[in-house]
This record gives sequence, structure tokens and C-alpha cells, in this order.
Amino acid sequence: MDNAMTAPIPTLRWEGRRLYILDQTLLPTQEQMVALDDLESVFEAIRSLRVRGAPAIGLCAAYGVLVGVKAYQNEALAVFRRRAEQCISRLAESRPTAVNLFYALERMREVLHGFPESGSSVDCFTALEAEAEAQYAADLAMCQEIGRYGAKLIREGMGILTHCNAGGLATSGLGTALAPLYVAHHQGLKFRVYADETRPLLQGARLTSWELERAGIDVTLICDNMAASLMRARRIDAVIVGADRIAANGDTANKIGTYGVAALATMHNIPVYVAAPWNTFDPHTAYGEEIPIEERYADEVRTFMGVQAAPPTVAVYNPAFDVTPATLIAAFITDRGILFPPFEESIATMLSTLYIPMGVQENHHDG
Amino acid sequence: MDNAMTAPIPTLRWEGRRLYILDQTLLPTQEQMVALDDLESVFEAIRSLRVRGAPAIGLCAAYGVLVGVKAYQNEALAVFRRRAEQCISRLAESRPTAVNLFYALERMREVLHGFPESGSSVDCFTALEAEAEAQYAADLAMCQEIGRYGAKLIREGMGILTHCNAGGLATSGLGTALAPLYVAHHQGLKFRVYADETRPLLQGARLTSWELERAGIDVTLICDNMAASLMRARRIDAVIVGADRIAANGDTANKIGTYGVAALATMHNIPVYVAAPWNTFDPHTAYGEEIPIEERYADEVRTFMGVQAAPPTVAVYNPAFDVTPATLIAAFITDRGILFPPFEESIATMLSTLYIPMGVQENHHDG
Repeated sequence: MDNAMTAPIPTLRWEGRRLYILDQTLLPTQEQMVALDDLESVFEAIRSLRVRGAPAIGLCAAYGVLVGVKAYQNEALAVFRRRAEQCISRLAESRPTAVNLFYALERMREVLHGFPESGSSVDCFTALEAEAEAQYAADLAMCQEIGRYGAKLIREGMGILTHCNAGGLATSGLGTALAPLYVAHHQGLKFRVYADETRPLLQGARLTSWELERAGIDVTLICDNMAASLMRARRIDAVIVGADRIAANGDTANKIGTYGVAALATMHNIPVYVAAPWNTFDPHTAYGEEIPIEERYADEVRTFMGVQAAPPTVAVYNPAFDVTPATLIAAFITDRGILFPPFEESIATMLSTLYIPMGVQENHHDG
Repeated sequence: MDNAMTAPIPTLRWEGRRLYILDQTLLPTQEQMVALDDLESVFEAIRSLRVRGAPAIGLCAAYGVLVGVKAYQNEALAVFRRRAEQCISRLAESRPTAVNLFYALERMREVLHGFPESGSSVDCFTALEAEAEAQYAADLAMCQEIGRYGAKLIREGMGILTHCNAGGLATSGLGTALAPLYVAHHQGLKFRVYADETRPLLQGARLTSWELERAGIDVTLICDNMAASLMRARRIDAVIVGADRIAANGDTANKIGTYGVAALATMHNIPVYVAAPWNTFDPHTAYGEEIPIEERYADEVRTFMGVQAAPPTVAVYNPAFDVTPATLIAAFITDRGILFPPFEESIATMLSTLYIPMGVQENHHDG
């Protein structure tokens, strides 16, 4: 596959030992890479969604540890290690819902703990850097695999609805939900994507429609509340969304509005596919009810990019995610294949073949 | 009932033979009455949603005829009449979906046609003015009646979802969907209203949350895509919305997103009430499929109150309305009582007791 396809978007880049990200809050009007040169800049970039999307958050946090310890390479190993632990703990507090963040940081912690007492801080940094780079490479490969499996579900002429952005901008590569579309497009299939704009932060309008248009894929932007009438008019044949955390039974936390889309799709006999890598599945969360749901600022709803859209004092309910029960999901498109119901079994079987860091549970349940 | 209750909002006002409207495109940040001094200003005010809401559009058009003929009172009656016909035809083209517009204009035309050949243009103007004033008074009373009937459905502690704005701002009085809430609040009941922000034009954020907060009613603003998870969490006990046109079988055209809300509510066993006066029912439209649906400009979706929110070239689908099939509606709250299924019968019975202008059909099907 050609290069443009494997990495459509420069979401984040570790270059000359500096971390650069594409500032997604400036899209679609400005395409600007910014350097994150200290720990708090990384924390702020994740918290304020300059980097977003479960896989990209994980990668940014892994590289963020490097940013935070870079200046400690001349210190004694014990000092370096203490600093690295601080960085890991701090970054784990940036966002609560996506489990990828905790996986990524836990792998960094394991490398840190496994590093020999006799080694130098410089070598420890190099070991951590190798781990972050490995995570990046694994993410890139993961996107390809999801794309390859998921493309088998796309047929010529289909109308496909997606919500939020689970695209190249959410990963290092082709994305999760959008990966099957990139691969199918690359194979020459014609289909139409409907992108929900995804209030309040408009990731569908700002990011999904931007990256699909850029790739030459037929995309039509709609407001979230228009999807139902498109379904009724039989213009949508499949729904593909990403995920921020998937419980052991298949209940899926994803961007607010996903539950409504899935419920409406089910009512209209339209299959709902959730595309996510193995590390979005959380074997330590049994049901959707156990997933912590981040509530964000009221002004995200009352304003948009500084423009007042509602009375400044009105009460607001602003959950960032909702939970779609497994019963509304037709299949999971993962980097290890497509999982069908019963999900408790198919998910457990997939995860049993993988190594899961034990520390993940305690860590992210504290966040 | 006290005065504040009968007319919570100065939506439009005919005063000293000048038409003033509250410019709703400036809410919630500016509360500004503007005078509409010529026909094209009235047309533009309706087209660009400075005045919106099916009943208010009808009233604005009726007064708009007066604005258009005011300067013709010294002309011969034939000239005055020709001008009045022009005004009626022009205003009928301002918006295609709400049937109230066509009722209001057809009543004006009947007065025009019924006026004696021997009369003066000045007296003809006075007769038209009396008709417009009668429509205004009838609208005020209609809101009160909808409020009185609908309040019987409200219980202490309920959570009530509404979509778009079918409030005081959509009428001369208490509104349609919001009238039951104003009356129940006046009776001392406590309940919580969830207002969908209603993209793309944010009538829920800008208008509904503004007028309910102003009236001291407990209102929480949400994005359209958050309603489903509130339903799942059992925080919504009823949905009340307005309507732009209701077919003879009960199929209801209303603001885009209403169908999705109604489908989700039905799935969660939550009753959906549509509040509308008799003249939103259209006996000449048999089914929802016959209702013309206005598609609006792509930039309403690509921008958010003037801020670029999507690539300027991305394709957009932007229907202003959708149709909710009658099967998803629990009851209609009308100024003539509450209508239950089977709706073909209950609607026909209600309409059979009323006078419907015969010209309505031909006129609005041309629009």
C-alpha cells in the first residue's frame, strides 16, 4: 500500500526527540503542528482536546513521559525514575474514559520497573523511547488491520453513517472507524459517508469531514439530529463508530450521541459496527455501568469558539460519552478480526491470546 | 391569569399601524424590536427566521399584507386590491412548510374578496386590519387553551424534553409546546425541562432556554445527541413538541430532529405529545409524504453562528423539517382539546366543527 494511505494525517510525530502534534482545536481552518516541550503542555493538549481519540491519546501520553523526563537524563537513575513515575501519574489524570491511555502509561511503567538498577538514566530514557516508538508502530499496524478486516463489510453504493471522529486524526494511521473506508476507497469501491457533526465540539464537522474530503472520499456533513430521517429514507446501510472503552460484555463507551445513533439504527434494521483495537477492550470492566463518564464544561454547549449561543447562566448537562449496550452492536471490527455475538465469549477469546498489563485496573480506576 | 402569563414575550406587535418584531436572530445576546416598514422587509424577516414558529409566521404575514398596502389607501379600490393580492402572493412564497401561513393569508384574501365594490380603499384597509387583529386575538386565546388542556398531562417532578422552540416566541402568547409548561408552572407545579439545542439554528439554545429561564422555569440545555442517554437514564417522562403541519392521518412535520426524538422516546416507552392549534392541521394533506420539506443553505450547517465549523466546500444535507409518523405520537394537544388515536377520526371530528378556507389547498401547494 502506498504511503499516503498508511499515514493520511500527521496526528503526532516524535522527531529529533521533540513531540509535535497537529493542534486539532484549530481545524478545519488552520493546519498547524505545535511542539509540546514540557509535561504540562502535554497534559493540557490532552485535556483540551488538541490531541483526541482514544489511540492518539495513548500515544501522546507515552511520548509525553519522554517529554517530562528528557531533562533528567543527567540525574541519578533514582531521581530519573521518580520523575518518570510523576509524569506517568500526572498524565493518567488528563482524561478519565479512554482505557488506551492507561494501557500506554502502564507499558511505560513496566519498562521503567524492568530497567536494571545498574543502568544509566540515559539508557533508561532510550528504553522508554523504544517502548513509545513500539506503541506508535503497533498503532499504525493496528489501523491497517482494522481497515483490512472492516473493508470486507463495505459494499458498492452503500451509505455509511459515522459519528464523531475515529479517523486518522484519532490515531497514528488510518484510524479505527474510518480505516475500513480508507481501505475500501483504496480498493476502488464507491460509497457515501454521512458524517454527524457531533456537538458540542463538532469533531465530525471539523475533523471527519475534513479528513475524508482530503482523501477524496464522498462525504456529506449532517447535524446529529438529521441521521434519523436519513435512516427512515433508507439512505444509510451501516453505521461505523469508534470506541473509548469496551467492557468485557461488549457495552461500549463512545462519544456522546453514539447510543442514540445505535438505538435508531437498530430500530431501522441497520447494522452498527464498532471499530476498535484490542487495547480499547477492558477486561476489568464487566459492564457499561462501570465505565466512568467524563462530564465537561457547560460553556462547551453554551458557546462555540467563543460565540454565545445560549443564555450565559442557563443550566447545562454535558456528558462527553455515553454507553451503547452490547445488544445494539452487530459486530466489533478489531485488529484481531471481526467479533460477533455472544460478545462475552468472542471478546474473552481475543483477549486471552494477548498480554494485558496487570497494573491497568488499579491505575485507571483511581483516575 | 396575570398579564405576564398571557403574553410572556413581545414576539410581534402592531402599534400605531406599524409592525414591530422581536428579531429572534439576535437572541439570546440582544433583545431588539425592529420595525418592518415595507413588504420586502416582512418577506425577508420570515425567510431569514427573524420571525419563526408556525403561528407567528402566519400572524406576521397577515400584518405584512397591511404593511404592503398601507401606502395604497388613497388609490382607487381596484388598485388597492391588486396590490393586496400581490402582497398575499409574495408572502405565501416566504416559507413552504408551515400551513398556518397559508391559512392566515387566505383569510386576508377572503376579506379582500368579500369587501363591497362600492367601498373605499381606506375602509378596505380597516377591514383587513380588523382581520389581522382578530387572528392575533385568536392566536393568543389558542395558546391559552393549549396550555389549559396540556397542563393536565404534567405531573409534579416530571422531566420533560422539548425540541426547537414552540414557545412564546413562536406565537403571540404562551406558545404551543411550551404553553402547558407555563400554565403548570403558574399552577405551582415543579418539573424540569430539558431543551434540545436544535442544530443548525439553535432555536432550543437561543430561544427556548432563554424564554423558560426568563419565566423562572427549571430548564437544562442539552445538545440534540444527549437526549437518548437521558431517556435511558429515566430522566425524561414526556416529550412535548410543536408542529409545522399535521396531515389528516396525524403524520407531523416539525423541526428536523423531531422524528429521531419521537422514535427514541417510543423505544423507551416515553409518550410523545404534539401541541398545535387547529390551523396547523391540514385536511388537504392525507399523509406525511405529501408535506413539502424545505431544504436550507449548506452554510447553516458548515458554520456555527458565523464561525467556520467545517471545510467550506464539504457537501451538506440540511432539511429544515422531518416527518414523524402518527404511530409514534401519543396525543395531540390542541386548542380544541386533546386528540387521541385513531387520529384520522379524532382529527376529522375536530376539523369538521370549524370553518376552513377553501383556497388554502391550491395556494400552498403552489409555494
